[in-house]
Amino acid sequence: MKCSIPKGTRDFLPNEMARRNYIFDTIREVFKAFAFEPIETPALENLSTLMGKYGEEGDKLLFKVLNSGDFMDGVDFSQDYRKVAPRICDRGLRYDLTVPFARFVVQHRDQLALPFRRYQLQPVWRADRPQKGRYREFYQCDADMIGSPSLLNELELVQMVDSVFKKLDVEVTLKINNRKVLAGIAELIGAPDKLVDITVAIDKLDKIGIDNVRAELQERGLDNSQIAALDPVLALSGSTADKLEQLTILFADNATGTKGVEELKELFGYIEQAKTQCNVELDLTLARGLNYYTGAIFEVKAHNVSIGSICGGGRYDDLTGIFGMPGVSGVGISFGADRIYDVLTELDKFPANLGQPAKALFINFGAACLPYCISCASLLRAEGIPTLIYPDAAKMKKQMDYANRCGVPYVIFAGEDEVANHTLTVKDMAAGTQQTLTPEALLAMLQA
Amino acid sequence: MKCSIPKGTRDFLPNEMARRNYIFDTIREVFKAFAFEPIETPALENLSTLMGKYGEEGDKLLFKVLNSGDFMDGVDFSQDYRKVAPRICDRGLRYDLTVPFARFVVQHRDQLALPFRRYQLQPVWRADRPQKGRYREFYQCDADMIGSPSLLNELELVQMVDSVFKKLDVEVTLKINNRKVLAGIAELIGAPDKLVDITVAIDKLDKIGIDNVRAELQERGLDNSQIAALDPVLALSGSTADKLEQLTILFADNATGTKGVEELKELFGYIEQAKTQCNVELDLTLARGLNYYTGAIFEVKAHNVSIGSICGGGRYDDLTGIFGMPGVSGVGISFGADRIYDVLTELDKFPANLGQPAKALFINFGAACLPYCISCASLLRAEGIPTLIYPDAAKMKKQMDYANRCGVPYVIFAGEDEVANHTLTVKDMAAGTQQTLTPEALLAMLQA
Repeated sequence: MKCSIPKGTRDFLPNEMARRNYIFDTIREVFKAFAFEPIETPALENLSTLMGKYGEEGDKLLFKVLNSGDFMDGVDFSQDYRKVAPRICDRGLRYDLTVPFARFVVQHRDQLALPFRRYQLQPVWRADRPQKGRYREFYQCDADMIGSPSLLNELELVQMVDSVFKKLDVEVTLKINNRKVLAGIAELIGAPDKLVDITVAIDKLDKIGIDNVRAELQERGLDNSQIAALDPVLALSGSTADKLEQLTILFADNATGTKGVEELKELFGYIEQAKTQCNVELDLTLARGLNYYTGAIFEVKAHNVSIGSICGGGRYDDLTGIFGMPGVSGVGISFGADRIYDVLTELDKFPANLGQPAKALFINFGAACLPYCISCASLLRAEGIPTLIYPDAAKMKKQMDYANRCGVPYVIFAGEDEVANHTLTVKDMAAGTQQTLTPEALLAMLQA
Repeated sequence: MKCSIPKGTRDFLPNEMARRNYIFDTIREVFKAFAFEPIETPALENLSTLMGKYGEEGDKLLFKVLNSGDFMDGVDFSQDYRKVAPRICDRGLRYDLTVPFARFVVQHRDQLALPFRRYQLQPVWRADRPQKGRYREFYQCDADMIGSPSLLNELELVQMVDSVFKKLDVEVTLKINNRKVLAGIAELIGAPDKLVDITVAIDKLDKIGIDNVRAELQERGLDNSQIAALDPVLALSGSTADKLEQLTILFADNATGTKGVEELKELFGYIEQAKTQCNVELDLTLARGLNYYTGAIFEVKAHNVSIGSICGGGRYDDLTGIFGMPGVSGVGISFGADRIYDVLTELDKFPANLGQPAKALFINFGAACLPYCISCASLLRAEGIPTLIYPDAAKMKKQMDYANRCGVPYVIFAGEDEVANHTLTVKDMAAGTQQTLTPEALLAMLQA
């Protein structure tokens, strides 16, 4: 029988787990330091919660779970499959952590003290076409703060990004934009209803170049004068402060754009005060194609690797409106663990000795020596030191080969002499040296 | 719009997460000390991997995931729904961690050094009827060691159980049985083909009493003399050593039973040497209704609560045979996190102060004081101390109310005076006292 797993899913072996946990632990540590609290939501959500929240394309990518029992009862199978699916599936797998969080906030609003900060590290599922770096089951690491419009929240997200990538020893650039600035631009060029089209097109500037963006804007219904009016925006230059000054002038008569520039000035002022170390810059081409951001927009890219954004987020003014609870403003950020994994691999930034299963392996000398061996191993294990006893009194070569294959740094001999003297012979596998220690001295050495 | 989640699933709020993580962390810590290595498998498995592995009842309880795109194409919907389901669903959600582990071992056998120990803490899904304490989505915490027949492995599982519940401060009894003893009994009474029936019936002894067990054995096709022959087994008495001696005599002419008793004697001998603290006893009525155990069988119950088994496991001689790889013996254990949660709640054994989101909250005195406030908060956060800055310069009462509602133990005032003197005024919320400290002294106090 051939063993396999579904396309786009993965098994994680111990060494991969150790590397992934290094990333998750680092992110979690920073989330906690900023007093975010963990929550979890079920993988299974009612389809009615998920459908219509991710656009038409998103609905197609939802994994739907077949109803139990006679799912066919009373269903008309002569209809189109798109009509049949929601009749035979009441539940689906979550597609992201944002919609479930919105549902969670509405459902538990009486138990939450606002402002509320939550983090959530859980897998999500998308029936996307699998390709390099894109999976059908993958983890998202989200932190959101809701119930406060203060731009201090935005600052703290910037500090968290700075802190995570400093800990991971990866140089990054954090790009910041503001949706109100983009909206102001759309108003300025006389196409306020084309905001989404403009931002989607601008978002592609890096990938397809200015000429193709112009062509796309034309396709999307902007006339030549409107497209031309966009030019000064795309041509802004100088430092962040310079750009913000040019925009201030540009928006002299535009309230939306002016508000956006004010927010950006306040946030960049905070960032300067906070002395973050990573490169932070204003990027007006940043739109992230998402419809629900209303203020700040963030995106993080690593230096020296050609991997897309590894972290992103922004401010949304109406998280829970889709579930009938208006007025909940929030700002959040999502770290892409899989891409960060790829970045650390490519830059060779994983610490050495991650995922070493056992620190000490006791050679098994048979029944007579076992009680002493068990007692010494228990001493180490009680202090949390990963310890193995070879399970059988096999030939020495076999036991040593196993220790080598597992990468155990210390092999412990507790044979007849050691039992008699209440000592242990300890072999340092890397150095090839041996010494005799008491069990307590071995413990102290392994704890050091 | 009404917000809800599917029946049998749960949201976990921060205080529940803290308690659950306390349990998971404790179990994980012990797994690691015994040098088990973490793996993860995808939630989505091919249905062909899962179907037929859990009996007919289990197949019904599998959550099946509808194929993407036109799932109806070429399918005959005039058939019974049981025939249609596998035509429109190629994948399902994992039902336990054992079958995916077996599949994992076969698929990655070239990358694993045997003996191999893995632990896995992941959710599983079952379309069971939801009821108190039974969920459709719940975590399993499994540890298995494969590739070694040594009973030292069984000992280590016993030590792990002992260690976990000692750390959780819960008194437990660990019951041990051996499938070979049960098989020996079935042979002795002349019903070797009825092993499963006998053990399933014996398993119910506690719940339904001896008379109902006899009636059930009759229903299952045993005659009165066979049922009577079982009496001496059910009536065994005395200490574990006494019972093992009585069994030794009973099995004088039965090889299977004798082997089982030898294994039990060896294991109980190890347990005595290892000086475990929890109550460990032989229980011949323990069968766990599972067909695949071939040697030791374990079950753990907590004292002073009427909650069923909170942990169980055993030895299986052929984990991977279902996937065409014979001869892989293993032994494993599974901790029931949900029931352990209920036990700790009922016995009031959760440590205080679990899940305290922030240790310090800085009162927001507005723009002039913010840079100092941000810098002091960064000092604490860099050392991993969960720290909040109230995001708005709201009225003092509002900020203090929030600190109270969140249960923040220290509120920090960094107003004009403190900025000028480079100090902080620190209020201990429980004691009601206040003191003035330098930022560095505050950090030292919070780290203590």
